[in-house]
Amino acid sequence: MTDPIRTDGAGGLSAAMARFAARTPAAALPAAARHQVRLSMLDWCAVGLAGCEENVSRIVRDMLAEDGGAARSTVLGLRARLPARAAALANGTTAHALDYDDTQFDFVGHPSAPVVAAALALAEARGSAGSELIDAVLIGVETTCRIGRWLGRAHYEHGFHQTATSGSFGAAAACARLLRLDEERTRHALGIASTRAAGLKSQFGTMGKPFHAGLAAANGLDAARLAAGGFVSRPDGLECEQGFARTHAGEMGDWSEALAGLGSEFRFQKVQYKYHACCHGTHAALEALLALREHVNQGAGGVRRVILRVNPRWLKVCNIQSPRTGLEAKFSYRFTAALALAGIDTGSLATFDDALCERADLAALRDKVEVQTDAAIADTAAEVRLETATGTFDERRDLDAAVSQDEQQAKLLAKANSLLGAARGMALWEAIAGLDKRPASSLGEVLAQVGSN
Amino acid sequence: MTDPIRTDGAGGLSAAMARFAARTPAAALPAAARHQVRLSMLDWCAVGLAGCEENVSRIVRDMLAEDGGAARSTVLGLRARLPARAAALANGTTAHALDYDDTQFDFVGHPSAPVVAAALALAEARGSAGSELIDAVLIGVETTCRIGRWLGRAHYEHGFHQTATSGSFGAAAACARLLRLDEERTRHALGIASTRAAGLKSQFGTMGKPFHAGLAAANGLDAARLAAGGFVSRPDGLECEQGFARTHAGEMGDWSEALAGLGSEFRFQKVQYKYHACCHGTHAALEALLALREHVNQGAGGVRRVILRVNPRWLKVCNIQSPRTGLEAKFSYRFTAALALAGIDTGSLATFDDALCERADLAALRDKVEVQTDAAIADTAAEVRLETATGTFDERRDLDAAVSQDEQQAKLLAKANSLLGAARGMALWEAIAGLDKRPASSLGEVLAQVGSN
Repeated sequence: MTDPIRTDGAGGLSAAMARFAARTPAAALPAAARHQVRLSMLDWCAVGLAGCEENVSRIVRDMLAEDGGAARSTVLGLRARLPARAAALANGTTAHALDYDDTQFDFVGHPSAPVVAAALALAEARGSAGSELIDAVLIGVETTCRIGRWLGRAHYEHGFHQTATSGSFGAAAACARLLRLDEERTRHALGIASTRAAGLKSQFGTMGKPFHAGLAAANGLDAARLAAGGFVSRPDGLECEQGFARTHAGEMGDWSEALAGLGSEFRFQKVQYKYHACCHGTHAALEALLALREHVNQGAGGVRRVILRVNPRWLKVCNIQSPRTGLEAKFSYRFTAALALAGIDTGSLATFDDALCERADLAALRDKVEVQTDAAIADTAAEVRLETATGTFDERRDLDAAVSQDEQQAKLLAKANSLLGAARGMALWEAIAGLDKRPASSLGEVLAQVGSN
Repeated sequence: MTDPIRTDGAGGLSAAMARFAARTPAAALPAAARHQVRLSMLDWCAVGLAGCEENVSRIVRDMLAEDGGAARSTVLGLRARLPARAAALANGTTAHALDYDDTQFDFVGHPSAPVVAAALALAEARGSAGSELIDAVLIGVETTCRIGRWLGRAHYEHGFHQTATSGSFGAAAACARLLRLDEERTRHALGIASTRAAGLKSQFGTMGKPFHAGLAAANGLDAARLAAGGFVSRPDGLECEQGFARTHAGEMGDWSEALAGLGSEFRFQKVQYKYHACCHGTHAALEALLALREHVNQGAGGVRRVILRVNPRWLKVCNIQSPRTGLEAKFSYRFTAALALAGIDTGSLATFDDALCERADLAALRDKVEVQTDAAIADTAAEVRLETATGTFDERRDLDAAVSQDEQQAKLLAKANSLLGAARGMALWEAIAGLDKRPASSLGEVLAQVGSN
């Protein structure tokens, strides 16, 4: 039971990934990896509920609601339930609508948005146990991360959106697990995903981007259900001649790298969360500033000067000096720093409105912030020097540094509270934390309650 | 009205195709092209109903029937109606399940399977007029043929199944037309199709191939509905940097070639139909043999010798000398020739069963057939020499040669009769021939009646 699957790629990459999905015993899934799933599910629920009223969420949901069907699965933002494949499409889209969901930089994609959408919808429809849902999500996001890494940077640079493409395989694996497909059927599910996975980076900046997460969820869910029904596909459709990887500019590195530690090590655990509703480039500096908050007296008077040091590549991305709109504020080192120093919640979507840019106290703080660059500082890092009436304080943060799950949990709860209000954030966390003892549908019920408040 | 759209590619290929779909007046659609659509719809209905009980048709249909939903659109092989997006997925798959549907060799794809599936489902759901359905199908298949040709052979050779990829654009255009989207909304529909179109040739020989036609139908239908709802995509997603064509090995020839005559010339009219339920490589010889049938006396006694001359490339494809099974018989020049000479219907699926291979009279005829090759004969052609007791007769057929619509209609009716029985074939044709005076739903009703007999 300690090594339940062969990771030597016997029979091909698809076969190994199918063995992982079909044959890893639930008891072999590490507690810490399963807890990471809980944290990502909390984040998924929070950003999903907060994203319900985005235009793309509404447009996709309206289309599906018009069609109706068996009322089995919860749809974010809708009172009525819908069939699982409709819920997967709608919820995947909604969870990515704000672009505020989790990211795994190993393969550069958002693993949870599609996989949780697919697995939750199917688990509700099937009456799965909550523990099965967590297991299936873990299997799914790990599949996404590993196949995504194997497809590699070349796949991404060629123009494919990994959230959409690798996400389809992850959603298929999660759903195959929930349906208890055997290894062979799981291979067919991955094969069906191989001929349907799609999504282009050229859609970034349009509604296409969040829609990709919904498509991946629905692709994976359909693939697993069809495989369960006896659909015969290419069981090696991912890696075969003219299969998905070869036709989609896959880097296709060594299988042994893609499969190393499969079933015991979970690369998904390197997932990162966004705690600030602004450009990712500002996040490391914001984290350092928040650590320095204790040294700031109330009001701007206590701050004399703030120096942010970042990698020069960010200057073109998020260094608007004096933003005039909420959207511009999201791309301003100086203004977001002023918000953090003033104790204003940068995790709340509502913070970034135009009116805030007019506040004189924030403008005064902003003008004390200076941005400097240093090519030796990593993309993911920032150094902050704070000079106050009482002294000079230095802090450095790198988003790549390990953060304990306790700290992640506290920050994600704060984020959920910012997005939804404290009572709703806590209700969601209680539902997720209790899933091992309750049916998966219990989470759907809480989502529906919280969403309709 | 004579030149309602600009075909100079102003604004890009997507813009030109969107203008074509949105702004070509119904009155400008040529009668002959619209009649070609009727013929293809007859073929679609016949091969679709005949393909209902294929495993892939059943598996996809069962999944969708389990989900139910608004009962608006006819599903081949199902008594209940389903939402349009479900009907499109099921019917596109079913129409291609036998691989007996129409083909356009300019882009090497099956234009009608996805486009008719999408347009019929949406026209029923919307209560469109029958004439609008015919117009929309024509717009859709022409879009498929032109975008497919522009993506070109390189796209196909790289591994993409044009029926799936170009079919998504055609289905989107057909549905955009039915929804009466303006040019801008139609561009967004094509943009959504750009990020979702998928389907790999490596799935050939599996259920993936027919499923692609269903996927294309559903992709296009969703794309048009979402665009109608306000979904913003890349309006140039087909041709933009890192758009569909560039990421999918598109040949991307000169736009002026792709757009020449758009709105007045319909390349779809070069569509070809399969009249024999066996390998396409045998069809030219079978057509020549059928033309010689009048010289054959009843029984094998009248035939002394038959020589088939074909391009040598076919020897590896369909030259099994003495087939032992129905499947082998489909790939045998000698045996299919024997069937034609004996007056046995090669258009009927039931013909190709194992028992027929045992018949002594057919074996005797088969042994009189000799296959010769000549590299100067086109892929699409065959020459037949028949020697009987009364003389020697030569006949040549090239599938690329123009065939009158009257002849096509007679052959397609015979095919429908072979597949479904004469009463049902004629009922379908009457429903299709009368569409200009009836609602689109009238065809759905006849399909349901005929299918349940």
